[in-house]
Amino acid sequence: MAVYTDVAAEDLAEFLKGYDIGELLSYKGIAEGVENSNFLLHTSNGAFILTLYEKRVAVDDLPYFLSLMAHLAERGVRCPQPARNRKGEVYSELAGRPAAVINFLEGMWPRRPNAVHCTGVGEALAKMHLAGRDFPMFRKNPLSVEGWRPLFDLAAPRADSVAPGLQDFITRELDHLEACWPKDLPLGVIHADLFPDNVFFLGDKLSGLIDFPFSCNDILAYDVAICLNAWCFETDHSFNVTKARALLNAYGRERQLSEAEQEALPLLARGSALRFLLTRLVDFLNVPPGALVKPKDPLEYVRKLRFHRNVASVRDYGLTQAGCVA
Amino acid sequence: MAVYTDVAAEDLAEFLKGYDIGELLSYKGIAEGVENSNFLLHTSNGAFILTLYEKRVAVDDLPYFLSLMAHLAERGVRCPQPARNRKGEVYSELAGRPAAVINFLEGMWPRRPNAVHCTGVGEALAKMHLAGRDFPMFRKNPLSVEGWRPLFDLAAPRADSVAPGLQDFITRELDHLEACWPKDLPLGVIHADLFPDNVFFLGDKLSGLIDFPFSCNDILAYDVAICLNAWCFETDHSFNVTKARALLNAYGRERQLSEAEQEALPLLARGSALRFLLTRLVDFLNVPPGALVKPKDPLEYVRKLRFHRNVASVRDYGLTQAGCVA
Repeated sequence: MAVYTDVAAEDLAEFLKGYDIGELLSYKGIAEGVENSNFLLHTSNGAFILTLYEKRVAVDDLPYFLSLMAHLAERGVRCPQPARNRKGEVYSELAGRPAAVINFLEGMWPRRPNAVHCTGVGEALAKMHLAGRDFPMFRKNPLSVEGWRPLFDLAAPRADSVAPGLQDFITRELDHLEACWPKDLPLGVIHADLFPDNVFFLGDKLSGLIDFPFSCNDILAYDVAICLNAWCFETDHSFNVTKARALLNAYGRERQLSEAEQEALPLLARGSALRFLLTRLVDFLNVPPGALVKPKDPLEYVRKLRFHRNVASVRDYGLTQAGCVA
Repeated sequence: MAVYTDVAAEDLAEFLKGYDIGELLSYKGIAEGVENSNFLLHTSNGAFILTLYEKRVAVDDLPYFLSLMAHLAERGVRCPQPARNRKGEVYSELAGRPAAVINFLEGMWPRRPNAVHCTGVGEALAKMHLAGRDFPMFRKNPLSVEGWRPLFDLAAPRADSVAPGLQDFITRELDHLEACWPKDLPLGVIHADLFPDNVFFLGDKLSGLIDFPFSCNDILAYDVAICLNAWCFETDHSFNVTKARALLNAYGRERQLSEAEQEALPLLARGSALRFLLTRLVDFLNVPPGALVKPKDPLEYVRKLRFHRNVASVRDYGLTQAGCVA
């Protein structure tokens, strides 16, 4: 949670004169997102989210994910749509930062996801992958396999202070994953961060996907692997095969995973676990004094990684054979 | 800003079944209020604020200020109204804390208040004082003159670490104010915390007063004195007599300040400055590690207090003689 930048009502009203989204009625800094400052706006036209981009998101990447949201929404994927200002821009500047306005999606993210939620996520992810096929822009994934070693270099010297042997554990994982990372799997637009807090539901019904700043072009099945990590482990770190089966089954109904994708899934899941282990480790070792956010436990992902390393085949995720769901 | 308590969507939906305010569509932790956890709710009936009371507010006091808001709203004062649950209660329990739901007021608080805003505040304050006349409940002000010395006792030993001589300065002020505090001024319901962030405007028009947890029964003119401190100093701590005149003028049009009240105003303003000096000083000396909130500068109120000490008469606030405004 974070509001790093306060915005004066007077400045916001001025900024919104550049948009055709009605008269500003109220705005509240909201405690969501750790990377940016977010505000919930009420205008005479409805509700909107204003985001001030604080860091990690290069201005150069804003057109990619703002255009992607517009592209997906036009193809029926429920996600916020960026408002264009009177100059046609999807972002401009406010309080010295890049700022964008998107429409507000009603819905709530499930704190205790169940198999029904996992079904919704699997279906929505596959539909997003299909809807992204004709998206014309390209953004390399900075947090895929090539990005992990530079990230680890930032944390390696102090990794053992978090857990004894962690440096060696990660080094060996990195060596293995760099050597074996699949090269010929179907590529496309991935969300890359589809955790429960980025998926809204109204009751059991998925109402939308949010938060696209990690979206990029990468292996589609890698996005599925991220969801296995994000949705299918219990708080005690045990793997819930019922949820995984629900997620994979629903995904497969919309977009069939190929045999090669299924075969690669344990390795992709292992890589995805390493990716979150590494970013959490770097964050954990670099908590600024007076930080607003308690860093997430990196060791959660050591446990998840170990689980995937022991997975013999996709059967352990609930799939019995290529294309079939147990 | 603060959200201290997260609430699971599942638990909130269950809690709201006790109310007749529509189906929950979304909720966001909002970065407002340092004492409580606040959430902005959208339901099929509209927008609401959910507050979880974290501290300082004794549960015993909740009926007072929740009933007061209902009382004032019924008499035309624009302020949030508490929703009653199906048992008729204005608060119940959520996440182990007392929790209340109030309707959401559109509007924005002015970051750079001008004389027009001060006019609005003066008028609204007087109307609130009038509307409170027949409010049947009573709550002593714990932060009036009798409450200051116990508060100072918490801070006195370390006061000089904030500014040399501060302990002595406050001791002498306390002695003086305790000896001279007026006893016969008109009493009534006061807001006691009517700072700019508790007053909403739509354009130049006041749209509502919020945040009543400090409301109590006390000297009415003390509330005016609080507003002089809260609204009429510039960020460089200089006193803006134009704003003060606007505020007092507007107040007087709704409720005439008596000669005795006018005469007491400099002393009341001095007391009010001491009250905020003391609570800020205690907060400043007791910032918890990892605090979400940067403590406010107590010395701002030393400067304000000194200003009021040098005020010869209400003339210095813009009033020329009893009942007349320059």
